[in-house]
Amino acid sequence: MRYKVTLAYDGNRYVGFQSQINGLTIQDEIEKVLKRICKKDLRIIMASRTDAGVHAKHQVFHFDIDKEYDTYKLKGSFNGLLPKDIHVIDVEKVKETFHARFSVKSKTYEYLINAGEYDVFLNGYAYQCFYKLDMDLMKECSKLFIGKHDFSSFNTSTYKEKPDQTRTISEFKIIKKGDLIKIRVTGDGFMRNMVRIMVGTLIDVGRGQKTIKEVKDMLKNPRKDTKRYNISPSGLYLVNIKY
Amino acid sequence: MRYKVTLAYDGNRYVGFQSQINGLTIQDEIEKVLKRICKKDLRIIMASRTDAGVHAKHQVFHFDIDKEYDTYKLKGSFNGLLPKDIHVIDVEKVKETFHARFSVKSKTYEYLINAGEYDVFLNGYAYQCFYKLDMDLMKECSKLFIGKHDFSSFNTSTYKEKPDQTRTISEFKIIKKGDLIKIRVTGDGFMRNMVRIMVGTLIDVGRGQKTIKEVKDMLKNPRKDTKRYNISPSGLYLVNIKY
Repeated sequence: MRYKVTLAYDGNRYVGFQSQINGLTIQDEIEKVLKRICKKDLRIIMASRTDAGVHAKHQVFHFDIDKEYDTYKLKGSFNGLLPKDIHVIDVEKVKETFHARFSVKSKTYEYLINAGEYDVFLNGYAYQCFYKLDMDLMKECSKLFIGKHDFSSFNTSTYKEKPDQTRTISEFKIIKKGDLIKIRVTGDGFMRNMVRIMVGTLIDVGRGQKTIKEVKDMLKNPRKDTKRYNISPSGLYLVNIKY
Repeated sequence: MRYKVTLAYDGNRYVGFQSQINGLTIQDEIEKVLKRICKKDLRIIMASRTDAGVHAKHQVFHFDIDKEYDTYKLKGSFNGLLPKDIHVIDVEKVKETFHARFSVKSKTYEYLINAGEYDVFLNGYAYQCFYKLDMDLMKECSKLFIGKHDFSSFNTSTYKEKPDQTRTISEFKIIKKGDLIKIRVTGDGFMRNMVRIMVGTLIDVGRGQKTIKEVKDMLKNPRKDTKRYNISPSGLYLVNIKY
């Protein structure tokens, strides 16, 4: 049986989603709980490897086990055993053809910026911006990302890891509500730090550190040696995955 | 010179506002910073002694020193030295007749309840309610608190500490937005755990554990031995103080 699990987490305490040697990860916490529930060592396959400090309102993983579980009870077991900053929203039985990573059609990320007075309740949950931002310029620039492009200038994956750095962005929205700016990006895939570098580039444009012409050039002449602003992970949320 | 300081803090890391022997407090953090700024030991007088885990979007204290400071620079010094979960919003020079505690005209608290699916981002910032609540009954009950009453049944201060337990509530609002319920209370003063016990009582009424008649009786026949539900501090925010 293959089980698909949808979950949310607050990334502040973790060094990322995927297991690694240098600290606590979401994957470690989940596999520890899975072992207690299923009484055996199981590996999970996640849809998206979020980085240290990145949050998720909707992340997905799958795992296989030769046993029938009631999905509602399984959700309850997960939430009873997981720490308070990880929460399982839904458990479904799926066909063996479903794969949490390879079946993804699109992913949506949101990035939160506080452009007003520092807010203690957004510490770790938004990027605190002290610059005056030109919203019109940022909106104009954001349109450049929409469509199919070689995003080599906008990520830190090497060509060895990701030989084809062409991705398609279907949605890029900037929504301002009072002092809060929410940036929403949907695409068929994102490489390492791609959302953070796109948002960082928009901030650079908004505060007059980069011109629209320079961003156009980064897209037209994709290259790894461009000066890039990889903005803080605190404001980044994985908010949807479509299959 | 007397200085009035308005600040916000996330109460999660602290055992309360006021200095005490059993852990870290907001007052300790502020007085430590004040010593570094003013090069001498100074005591602050706070408007309201918030409990462990209680948050503030608007708290006030004052302190005295025989020295002229630029208030804008003083704000900057505070925020440069304070931890990230305490933030000074404003510093003003005030007359010696101003007293952070005794000059208070009214205080406003808000209490946040999440009545929907558990949300990792509200962990420590709202009360997670798993009961089905009757909002109409809660609203009807909340009106009973408005006005001048002896609140002996609704606090944990002893008569030795507070001989007169009569307070006036001028505002008691319940606002529901999706699954979030915000309760807003304004009064001329609140005794220990008074807001939490009033909110706990409303929850009891909303889930059918207490009747409106019983609440009326608690107000008409004030007494300390009533069974009271002192709800979690996580959802409580001090949001305004008027002088």
